[in-house]
Amino acid sequence: MRVSCAVFLALCFASRALPAQAATSNAALEIEALNKSLADATRRMDNGAALALWADDGVSLLPSTKPIEGKKAIGDFLNTVTAAYPGARMESFTMQCHGLEISGNWASEWCTEHQIVNLAADKPPFDGWGKMLLVLHRSAGGWRITREMWNQALPGGGTAP
Amino acid sequence: MRVSCAVFLALCFASRALPAQAATSNAALEIEALNKSLADATRRMDNGAALALWADDGVSLLPSTKPIEGKKAIGDFLNTVTAAYPGARMESFTMQCHGLEISGNWASEWCTEHQIVNLAADKPPFDGWGKMLLVLHRSAGGWRITREMWNQALPGGGTAP
Repeated sequence: MRVSCAVFLALCFASRALPAQAATSNAALEIEALNKSLADATRRMDNGAALALWADDGVSLLPSTKPIEGKKAIGDFLNTVTAAYPGARMESFTMQCHGLEISGNWASEWCTEHQIVNLAADKPPFDGWGKMLLVLHRSAGGWRITREMWNQALPGGGTAP
Repeated sequence: MRVSCAVFLALCFASRALPAQAATSNAALEIEALNKSLADATRRMDNGAALALWADDGVSLLPSTKPIEGKKAIGDFLNTVTAAYPGARMESFTMQCHGLEISGNWASEWCTEHQIVNLAADKPPFDGWGKMLLVLHRSAGGWRITREMWNQALPGGGTAP
């Protein structure tokens, strides 16, 4: 059985090379759309839209913070941050992602981001740069974030634009 | 061709369920060995042994640092850090990894680490906690680190031991 499987698989993959490439290309476009949705949700400070991009078993790893495990805990964290800065408004948010690797229903990429947040009227705006490493998983609902880690980046992000 | 592939694949996978599980189990054991090698190399401050665990196109994402892209750049960075602390000696280093996900030749996991480093005689030891998100790739040489991000953890790591 093993040999016949191997031979047959080779024939299948040989005959399906173009569809396989198309599948990877589709996945890359879908992940590009996920990145755009993440940037849009962050820009609008829309916690519901951001949370919808997470897998149920997602884990967010933020600096000097306990690992945030599971979609409910991530939603609670986002709401806690928003509540702590009631007058905050995102003036600008940009994100560039690099090094996309796709293997079936799993993918990873790393990104740099720059955010300017207007805080209360009597405070200077927050101007911060960060890096992210993301692991993504595709289920029936599409690609979702399963792992996210963030740390501070140098101003300019340290990479070519 | 497509239908016959699908039917045949279903038969293949049904008949090979146990070998497939064994492959995943082997990969998990191999990654456990990689983690142990990484901890051992870090404990000995052996930059050569640590660098051997990296893929040629690896990217290390450290806080307030430009992304370090490629094995040579990562080796140069490790040597720069070692040279900056000539009397340093790792008193202890422990690392626990979680959430291993394997898809073919790709995997990811996140880890917490605790290090105590004795610096020069007139300085107090450095006692630090960190978190890591790793993306791993298996090539002919075995599993290697392709992406690493690190940030600070709360003392205790914020997770159960």
